[in-house]
Amino acid sequence: MNIRSAGLTGLSVLESDRFVFRSGDLDFMSANLIQEVLEPLQSMRLIDPHTHINPHQAASKTLADILGYHYYTELAHSAGMPRQQIEEPGLAPKDKVSRLVPWLRTIENTAQYSWLLEMCHFFFDFKDDRITVNNWEGLYDQSLKKMQSANWEQTVLEQSGLDQVYLTNDFDDPLQGFDTKKYVPCLRTDDLVFHLGKGQVRERLQKATSLEPSSASTLKNAIGKLFSHFSTNGVRACAISLPPDFHPAAVSSATADGIVAKVFGGHELSAAESVTLSQFVFWTLAEYCVEYRLPFDLMIGVNRRVYENGVFQGQDLFDTRVSLIQYKALFNAFPTVIFPVSVLAETSNQELVSYSWIFPNVVTSGHWWYSNIPVYIENDTRGRLQAVPMTKQIGYYSDMYKLEFAMPKFAMYRRILAKVLAEDFVISRRWSVNRAVELGKRVLRGNVETIFGEAG
Amino acid sequence: MNIRSAGLTGLSVLESDRFVFRSGDLDFMSANLIQEVLEPLQSMRLIDPHTHINPHQAASKTLADILGYHYYTELAHSAGMPRQQIEEPGLAPKDKVSRLVPWLRTIENTAQYSWLLEMCHFFFDFKDDRITVNNWEGLYDQSLKKMQSANWEQTVLEQSGLDQVYLTNDFDDPLQGFDTKKYVPCLRTDDLVFHLGKGQVRERLQKATSLEPSSASTLKNAIGKLFSHFSTNGVRACAISLPPDFHPAAVSSATADGIVAKVFGGHELSAAESVTLSQFVFWTLAEYCVEYRLPFDLMIGVNRRVYENGVFQGQDLFDTRVSLIQYKALFNAFPTVIFPVSVLAETSNQELVSYSWIFPNVVTSGHWWYSNIPVYIENDTRGRLQAVPMTKQIGYYSDMYKLEFAMPKFAMYRRILAKVLAEDFVISRRWSVNRAVELGKRVLRGNVETIFGEAG
Amino acid sequence: MNIRSAGLTGLSVLESDRFVFRSGDLDFMSANLIQEVLEPLQSMRLIDPHTHINPHQAASKTLADILGYHYYTELAHSAGMPRQQIEEPGLAPKDKVSRLVPWLRTIENTAQYSWLLEMCHFFFDFKDDRITVNNWEGLYDQSLKKMQSANWEQTVLEQSGLDQVYLTNDFDDPLQGFDTKKYVPCLRTDDLVFHLGKGQVRERLQKATSLEPSSASTLKNAIGKLFSHFSTNGVRACAISLPPDFHPAAVSSATADGIVAKVFGGHELSAAESVTLSQFVFWTLAEYCVEYRLPFDLMIGVNRRVYENGVFQGQDLFDTRVSLIQYKALFNAFPTVIFPVSVLAETSNQELVSYSWIFPNVVTSGHWWYSNIPVYIENDTRGRLQAVPMTKQIGYYSDMYKLEFAMPKFAMYRRILAKVLAEDFVISRRWSVNRAVELGKRVLRGNVETIFGEAG
Repeated sequence: MNIRSAGLTGLSVLESDRFVFRSGDLDFMSANLIQEVLEPLQSMRLIDPHTHINPHQAASKTLADILGYHYYTELAHSAGMPRQQIEEPGLAPKDKVSRLVPWLRTIENTAQYSWLLEMCHFFFDFKDDRITVNNWEGLYDQSLKKMQSANWEQTVLEQSGLDQVYLTNDFDDPLQGFDTKKYVPCLRTDDLVFHLGKGQVRERLQKATSLEPSSASTLKNAIGKLFSHFSTNGVRACAISLPPDFHPAAVSSATADGIVAKVFGGHELSAAESVTLSQFVFWTLAEYCVEYRLPFDLMIGVNRRVYENGVFQGQDLFDTRVSLIQYKALFNAFPTVIFPVSVLAETSNQELVSYSWIFPNVVTSGHWWYSNIPVYIENDTRGRLQAVPMTKQIGYYSDMYKLEFAMPKFAMYRRILAKVLAEDFVISRRWSVNRAVELGKRVLRGNVETIFGEAG
Repeated sequence: MNIRSAGLTGLSVLESDRFVFRSGDLDFMSANLIQEVLEPLQSMRLIDPHTHINPHQAASKTLADILGYHYYTELAHSAGMPRQQIEEPGLAPKDKVSRLVPWLRTIENTAQYSWLLEMCHFFFDFKDDRITVNNWEGLYDQSLKKMQSANWEQTVLEQSGLDQVYLTNDFDDPLQGFDTKKYVPCLRTDDLVFHLGKGQVRERLQKATSLEPSSASTLKNAIGKLFSHFSTNGVRACAISLPPDFHPAAVSSATADGIVAKVFGGHELSAAESVTLSQFVFWTLAEYCVEYRLPFDLMIGVNRRVYENGVFQGQDLFDTRVSLIQYKALFNAFPTVIFPVSVLAETSNQELVSYSWIFPNVVTSGHWWYSNIPVYIENDTRGRLQAVPMTKQIGYYSDMYKLEFAMPKFAMYRRILAKVLAEDFVISRRWSVNRAVELGKRVLRGNVETIFGEAG
Repeated sequence: MNIRSAGLTGLSVLESDRFVFRSGDLDFMSANLIQEVLEPLQSMRLIDPHTHINPHQAASKTLADILGYHYYTELAHSAGMPRQQIEEPGLAPKDKVSRLVPWLRTIENTAQYSWLLEMCHFFFDFKDDRITVNNWEGLYDQSLKKMQSANWEQTVLEQSGLDQVYLTNDFDDPLQGFDTKKYVPCLRTDDLVFHLGKGQVRERLQKATSLEPSSASTLKNAIGKLFSHFSTNGVRACAISLPPDFHPAAVSSATADGIVAKVFGGHELSAAESVTLSQFVFWTLAEYCVEYRLPFDLMIGVNRRVYENGVFQGQDLFDTRVSLIQYKALFNAFPTVIFPVSVLAETSNQELVSYSWIFPNVVTSGHWWYSNIPVYIENDTRGRLQAVPMTKQIGYYSDMYKLEFAMPKFAMYRRILAKVLAEDFVISRRWSVNRAVELGKRVLRGNVETIFGEAG
């Protein structure tokens, strides 16, 4: 038992003689212990409750789909690669990879790079410990062969242990042509809440609903039609990402009427009117979540397009000056809606822990984006496991765009989870390994089923 | 010596040959080391410098007093228990416990639950590692027998090693009928600062002081009478909890006069007037702390009644967007008043460390409420021990409502403290165990005596 | 291998059989491992990229120069020492030390004290583990002998392994009389941006440039002359410290004209005009950084003179409510200027990591002031190494006023760096020691050369 673990959570019983401070190879025991906890977590099958998978093309077709993930393009660009090099129109996949590879040496230290390497080892039989200008082409060709094999998509799902993959569907997605039991629809509502000022979005809404909203109530009806359509197709959650300055609030129909009429009349809204419209639509979504008994995933804290010349999907950042107190009215007004909350800034995690500890309808959800880095995951996982009811924690989601990423991302999380369970529960609180594993399984999958509904 | 410890604080001397990197059982040494540091800390007697104990009924009468602690009712409610189930009027203690017990399985992971279990093991000879629907009744009956034994209160104090327990008294508390040497009065001032707008509070003030304030100076006089009364009865601190948006400021008598007259005339204040009145009363309290040489405990950061339908005492939360810079004027204006500062958000701890490092009259105080969780305590303790003068740190208080909670809460803190002392001082800085223990004792008790006055 | 390390970053490969979980003395291995990583980092020579060294008197003359460092005077004052005791005019160095020494016992726990002790051990052959009223005089005399020896300055540089020391020069520094290859000029611009309202500062500007600014363009010209002068003298960076509420913004010449005329006409500016003037000057500096190809060091987050009666340089604090989003316009407008960013609050570190991960022109820089404490350094170092391209991290600078401080401060950093490299890279990601050391060297020195230019 190492000194880190011995008192880590400080939760062990008082009587020191009940500690196991006897052997010189306790450390060996501890390392074995993590493995003992980890193995059953690794072998269990998963539901991934938040991704950006396109169910019509879920797996990667070439290594360009993998290296084109914004985590790599933005890091390479940050390290000096001109954006244009990889965003050149008509660039062939292999050329794109060849332009990205030289920059990988500058990001070998990152967790993001470790996902890439682990994935290449796991899926593509890659043996080296670096992807370089000298070995990338072999990897490219070998991975291409795999990806072109029959049933690659099914192979990835199987090898990754994925039973279900939740999607993030546009509100006008027809939800046709894929198995919604495997690829579970979730209604993404960013466009509705924040972009009704764009003609294109309004047209999509009108087309999807065959309605022409001109008042608060007709806009509500249109949104209701979306919920009905999604509900018919097995939707499991409503979801949205929110900027740090957003404050949900109820808006009266009288107030909304004029604004809805104005925007659907094609007129520009003032900044204040835009805010009110966002609040009105957001509150309407929560009302439909009551009606359709849907959890409402809140992903709080992103500022869009902060770096205007960044690569595709590599322009967003955040502002730590955000608080869940902004959601006080919402959490109070909708006690029957479960809100799985993700926070972008690690500094928000203690608020998330505390709001989930107090509000029955707030649950912790995953480790999002800039907080999906080992040092933050570990700290946040400890806080949640130490202070939030075990039934109210959704451990992890991959947020992936291509199926191959679930494996290394969940692997990272499971190792951290196993470590925290071993240290804070088996050692510090003298739980059995089995009991710790049960807690891990609940956080990894059980709660996903309880909160969103069972697989299949 | 494990890798965590070896360079943890990075403070060890440069010469590597002076490290003790020689044996294969260094880890055994480390675990022993924590125990070596911990034991003298466990055996020392304590002063608990902040509690909510009712000195007329300090110990629990039934397990319902213990399980009725808001830490359990709010977590059970958060996990799904309807509030009404336990807040039903006239509910018998045993029935209350029977309704709470089924929910405990959902919170077994929490630190709060670990306090309960450790307490039941320690005081009530409970042997199981879970409290369940099957075994709770035996625990209830056994604990009842203990609590009904002669001198249970004294037994708890003795077994917990408590020499003194500081209270948090209402401003109109007569302070009669208990031993103020054992249960030390502290003047709680929340009502005065934030609730003079309520008729009931003004009446209590008028009754307690036999004065009818109608101006700044007469309100000051009334407050002065409270200080005089408390001072006569051995008060050791003035205390208040403050919302994140509070900014102390001096208010002129001229400005205050009209507002005091208005509110004591029974008129509703505007929001701005309420703020000014709060500032005026708060500043007045600090002035009396000068006169009466009292430390002024500031507990910064709580938002009251955020979850309006929460259980009793389970409705408050916080907003991390708070800074000690808001207290700049106060800390500068009252150099002779010691301000033991508690912060609710862990994100405020570094500010607390830094303000205590710079301001002679600011000292760090305990680990409050949502930050009283092992992962935060450990991090915060490291920061404080690494950067604040050792004489300016009040390590811990229990914040308890019933005496039985001091034991498990202080036990949790002492284990974390021992770990930090062993790692950051004995190993990394090569202090002797004895020297580290002396630091621990100072933080645990010595500074309480220096700052608030010696026991007895 | 200890439990802390085994899954720390969770980045190790999936196959558990590739772990080295076999021996009882893995911990010994781990401790040795840190040493293995540390030794080459300790023996390498350094460039210190940010200090406040006076090149005309770089080394200390007496122990009073060392104990007079604000880290000691402010902590002693915080612990109770009256400011006047050490700020008495004409106080002899030895008397100053004799007045400070009694207070050292109250700060022996601090990291700051550990620097002092390590330095005295290293440079002055001090053997005790405490500096006390009983042994300080011997230390004083012995250190005096050393400091009066021939070439003491050179000895310190040599023993500390310092190749170059970057300065922070006033804008009107003649930059004469010292070797600018060894003591590298950096243009400090706080006075220009924030204090042109002071007649003294305007006079210094007029004197330094022989220009009398009266409009936006003539002020720009004056600032350009400063850049030209610094450029001629080997300047490597423009630098500034910024308060938490500063928002860089472009200001039109038309808007600036009137304000510049007003302030240089000797008239008091309104608060709003002052802000606009600061923004105008700041933006102008960034424009000259483009022209002169200079990195622009931003040290973000300090509030000046918070504790008004504090000791010299011991009055500043901070407000965690600051965000890099305030710098959005700047980072977008100047893609060719490298901004090495230091943040004062640890709560800002994740933003710094994320902004450096996205913006090509933002790099992480050191561990500043209140965040230069082991617990924060370790956490921040992990975040940066896990998520920022390795080429974009300036590991450390000493911020020192006297040369003797580089040794203990860099020693502290190198031990923490070695620990993080050993745990997160060698163990968790199975890097070779050599590869981890290369990463460490890059962060310690390589990136300093890449970003600011090679030594000599």
